[in-house]
Amino acid sequence: MSDSPPAHRRGRAFAEGVLSAAANELLNTGFDGFTIANVAEKAGVHVTSIYRRWRTKEQLVIDALLSSVEPTIPVPDTGSVRADLVELTLNLYASITSPQSKALLRLATMPLDFDRLDEARGRMVDDRSAAMEVVFERAVRRGEIGDTVDPRLALELLHSPIYSRVLITHEPVDDAFVTDLVDLALHGLAPDANTRTRPRIRGAASE
Amino acid sequence: MSDSPPAHRRGRAFAEGVLSAAANELLNTGFDGFTIANVAEKAGVHVTSIYRRWRTKEQLVIDALLSSVEPTIPVPDTGSVRADLVELTLNLYASITSPQSKALLRLATMPLDFDRLDEARGRMVDDRSAAMEVVFERAVRRGEIGDTVDPRLALELLHSPIYSRVLITHEPVDDAFVTDLVDLALHGLAPDANTRTRPRIRGAASE
Repeated sequence: MSDSPPAHRRGRAFAEGVLSAAANELLNTGFDGFTIANVAEKAGVHVTSIYRRWRTKEQLVIDALLSSVEPTIPVPDTGSVRADLVELTLNLYASITSPQSKALLRLATMPLDFDRLDEARGRMVDDRSAAMEVVFERAVRRGEIGDTVDPRLALELLHSPIYSRVLITHEPVDDAFVTDLVDLALHGLAPDANTRTRPRIRGAASE
Repeated sequence: MSDSPPAHRRGRAFAEGVLSAAANELLNTGFDGFTIANVAEKAGVHVTSIYRRWRTKEQLVIDALLSSVEPTIPVPDTGSVRADLVELTLNLYASITSPQSKALLRLATMPLDFDRLDEARGRMVDDRSAAMEVVFERAVRRGEIGDTVDPRLALELLHSPIYSRVLITHEPVDDAFVTDLVDLALHGLAPDANTRTRPRIRGAASE
């Protein structure tokens, strides 16, 4: 194999074409109807050249979905933890509502045992946790949240309802819902926390 | 058709046999490989008698899963909201970890448009919301939580992480995790709420 740029570029173009055809095929037929032969036809390449790069249908499916999903989400920095958490949650929602992301999420719910899928899931969770940690560090520095809360747990508490709505109940996720969730997560259910006439914070930080 | 008890019992036995065979078939082959012909063979009945009761494969699949899933979860009454919420959440977890429940949940994540499925999902959400409302009413009466929190939203906040772990990340759900989740949901992230040296409450109610 050559390392020259044209060969690299050809390789990348080949991979992109196959992955894009595979992602479309998956959305049209689902996982069970998906075949490498159909993908080859749609991409205009030989079946064998696909198999040279992806040994199994499963590997191709996962790579196709991963290539079509945004791996990182933007980390907001509004100056207030409440607005940061609302924006971070809306960013997460935006990142999982494409047909490709939903297909990947559904694939993750299937009783499949793919290391690649676990790895991909792990990478996405790490990315979201890292984003939450940045938001948390700033909030702790501003005195808005306690420094003993585990960002990974807070992430699960705050973002799981988004996954549930997208995947299971198909209820809408709008600004009002996300704001209510964030307020509940910030202040909790207990009445000492429940000073329920909270102002619509914007820059209520103690800086 | 006769209304006599023996005919009724025969009808019930027929339905139970078919639904049980269908649930097993679904767990073994998945949705795409599922056929009514195979179910008929396993149940030892005629294909046509299955079709007389269930018009489509989809209807049979959904009824089979619904029949194998516990529709209601026990509502705890420990005397403290913290212990009630921990137990309610563990009850929810127990109710969704059977292979049948997981299959139903996964079916709910598929891009299928079945009214029966929506109806079933709605019924299960209503049941869990009703359980949460009972726990909430008692907690409000004891002064443990504010009376302005929406039980439905609290349910989403507290139980969605369980669905995410079962369906997506496959991380374990144990007492420690559930207790941490409940504490975070009760007291929130904000430092005014975070009197982090909370006692291991048991009957800390103000009754």
